[in-house]
Amino acid sequence: MKEAISNVMLSDYGYLLYLALILFSTKLFGLLTKRIQLPQVVGALAAGLVLGPACFGLVTETDFIKCVSEIGVVVLMFTAGLETDIKEMKKTGLASLVIAILGVIVPLGAGWAISTIFNTEETAGMSSVLMQNIFIGVILTATSVSITVETLKEMGKLSSKSGNAIIGAAVIDDILGIIVLTVITSTAGSGGEGSGGGDILMTVIKIILFFVFAIIVALLFNFIFNKWSGRSKKDLRRYVIIAFVFCLIMSFSAEYFFGVADITGAFVAGLALSNGPRANYLNNRFGTLSYMLLSPVFFASIGLQVVLPEMSMSIILFSLLLLVGAILSKIVGCGLGAKLCRFSNKDSIRIGAGMVSRGEVALIVASKGAAVGLMKDEYFAPVVIVVVVTTIITPILLKFAYKSKNGEDESEIQTPAAETK
Amino acid sequence: MKEAISNVMLSDYGYLLYLALILFSTKLFGLLTKRIQLPQVVGALAAGLVLGPACFGLVTETDFIKCVSEIGVVVLMFTAGLETDIKEMKKTGLASLVIAILGVIVPLGAGWAISTIFNTEETAGMSSVLMQNIFIGVILTATSVSITVETLKEMGKLSSKSGNAIIGAAVIDDILGIIVLTVITSTAGSGGEGSGGGDILMTVIKIILFFVFAIIVALLFNFIFNKWSGRSKKDLRRYVIIAFVFCLIMSFSAEYFFGVADITGAFVAGLALSNGPRANYLNNRFGTLSYMLLSPVFFASIGLQVVLPEMSMSIILFSLLLLVGAILSKIVGCGLGAKLCRFSNKDSIRIGAGMVSRGEVALIVASKGAAVGLMKDEYFAPVVIVVVVTTIITPILLKFAYKSKNGEDESEIQTPAAETK
Repeated sequence: MKEAISNVMLSDYGYLLYLALILFSTKLFGLLTKRIQLPQVVGALAAGLVLGPACFGLVTETDFIKCVSEIGVVVLMFTAGLETDIKEMKKTGLASLVIAILGVIVPLGAGWAISTIFNTEETAGMSSVLMQNIFIGVILTATSVSITVETLKEMGKLSSKSGNAIIGAAVIDDILGIIVLTVITSTAGSGGEGSGGGDILMTVIKIILFFVFAIIVALLFNFIFNKWSGRSKKDLRRYVIIAFVFCLIMSFSAEYFFGVADITGAFVAGLALSNGPRANYLNNRFGTLSYMLLSPVFFASIGLQVVLPEMSMSIILFSLLLLVGAILSKIVGCGLGAKLCRFSNKDSIRIGAGMVSRGEVALIVASKGAAVGLMKDEYFAPVVIVVVVTTIITPILLKFAYKSKNGEDESEIQTPAAETK
Repeated sequence: MKEAISNVMLSDYGYLLYLALILFSTKLFGLLTKRIQLPQVVGALAAGLVLGPACFGLVTETDFIKCVSEIGVVVLMFTAGLETDIKEMKKTGLASLVIAILGVIVPLGAGWAISTIFNTEETAGMSSVLMQNIFIGVILTATSVSITVETLKEMGKLSSKSGNAIIGAAVIDDILGIIVLTVITSTAGSGGEGSGGGDILMTVIKIILFFVFAIIVALLFNFIFNKWSGRSKKDLRRYVIIAFVFCLIMSFSAEYFFGVADITGAFVAGLALSNGPRANYLNNRFGTLSYMLLSPVFFASIGLQVVLPEMSMSIILFSLLLLVGAILSKIVGCGLGAKLCRFSNKDSIRIGAGMVSRGEVALIVASKGAAVGLMKDEYFAPVVIVVVVTTIITPILLKFAYKSKNGEDESEIQTPAAETK
């Protein structure tokens, strides 16, 4: 009826079509990549590329798609938390720290080294060449763990020892990333932003406060929720809703009050409920919400954001080198960290592969750097290429890393079965 | 990590908090209304009022909330279609037509009659007083069936004979509404919009074309989907996704190509799959998607839109009369229609009560009328009041209408159980 009223409103219903296109193509491409023995995530990412401005330009990213995809990654990390065995996590805690630290240092050095080859001349109005080159390294430090989580889930490896180490390291990586970024932008000082040491101290204090807050709230909520939801023997919808509310509030608080990523808050929320009597039930329901709406939109939206600008020969060369550096430095850095902590060779490679993907965080860091004179605009394209390729290649690397010697896929199905892709 | 980057982006995560507030308060209020023997929908609607500008103004309606709530009502009508017994629907088809026609004529007359008492003076630049008064009647014709569908679902009465008659009548009501609206706006002729008879003919042709299109596509899809999904014995996620895609495309097509409500398209899509081997499975999964995210946002968003302006004494009186007229005219009109078609007295009252609620369609019709000079701006507040009160009162009326004589609630649980509110 609404439509008859005003022809101007015709395009108001575009999002219904967008959503249909996203759901259909992520599923179709996902099944195609599954056919050729690759994770479905690869197909979903490719679907976004095909639908977006990089290819056919059928779907544009709206506010609606942005919000749904962000809730998608929040729910993804929440369920990752739900599936995590806290005892196992504690065991791999130190290892995760070592992996994360080496996974920040090695890419930082690699990015700086590659950049020094190309970026040599001082430019007026910008930070020194040295700082610029270090900044390229900073961009390479940010791991985006969501793709890895989805891939490990699909292969049933999320709660393996290596899976635990990856998630722990990714969370710590995120924290280290904030500190490194704060340090470097506070040295930039253009636009009157940097107040040097004070900034860094504030950031570290906020991070510490977040963890104090998160641990207290998680323990409290864990106690109250488990007591409350244990009273009835039935599976009630209210448990799911309250768990969702908790997840959203933790995500929001992490970003808003502490400057920590929303997905870190969501992960902690999931951890808080992981040992409760309703963990399986919650996991099942959130799984349905994810696969029916949130995940397809999230994975497609990554591809939707890709726009490739024209590039000079020198920039293309730089992109290729940066890409190789980005992939190898994480595998080497994190793999070395894992090896130091007595993981097997195979597990070390798996952990390294799982940390390769960079996500939208790298893009946000890059734009922040460009704004304060730490990065030249022409380096945007290489960063975009690194993000896109590392994102698509990570599930493929993981697939091979988790294959056993005789070529058989080791995956054991861990999902409550009955429903498959 | 993002947050540390730019403090300006702090409010970017507001929607996480909004969603948390909506989920929490709709559930809390829903459980409270359930305590006092009222449907949970009443609580969810009240939650929106409390969160919105009418009360605390904690949550504002964003593009994200609008899209999610529209998808919510689309999915709601899709599942209503899924649960509909087509054979039963055919049986009640003629009755639905009679109920819908009387349910349009009686409120049209009532609105006109009430309006003639208050609106008597010609105003420059507007349509004649007669047309203005008829237009108030037109506003009263638009039934919003979503609240009724949710209430009947909650009470397990959706597939009852009266439930079928209500849904059928609501769909037809929607079609009649488009025709009546086209007729009256084409007479307004201000702003060079109305082209008279041509408009009306076009509208009718488009509606007929929609049904031809819908029937052909539904039959085709029914055949292909049932064959495809019948091949495997497992419940596969792809069936859910493809069904969702079909639902979205039918909704979009209805609005975009034929000027018919998106929810009518969604309902037809649901009907097309209602007799297939996966109907229960689909219903179950869409139910989860609904209660976890879409429905709470949809019901809250209705309350969020309510803003009550200041009113003169005369307008308050008009509002009260219009409200009484709106409620009684649907009960009498639709009840009479049902009675004519040999429904029992009790069922006739149920059907009348189920058609009482007006939704956002009435508001859209009103703004369209104001734009073409068919309605004075001061009548907006009364229309808002009618929409709000009829929406909240409908589940309450239904609750009492479906109570049996001895005061016992007749509800039988029809949901696949195992999971309750």
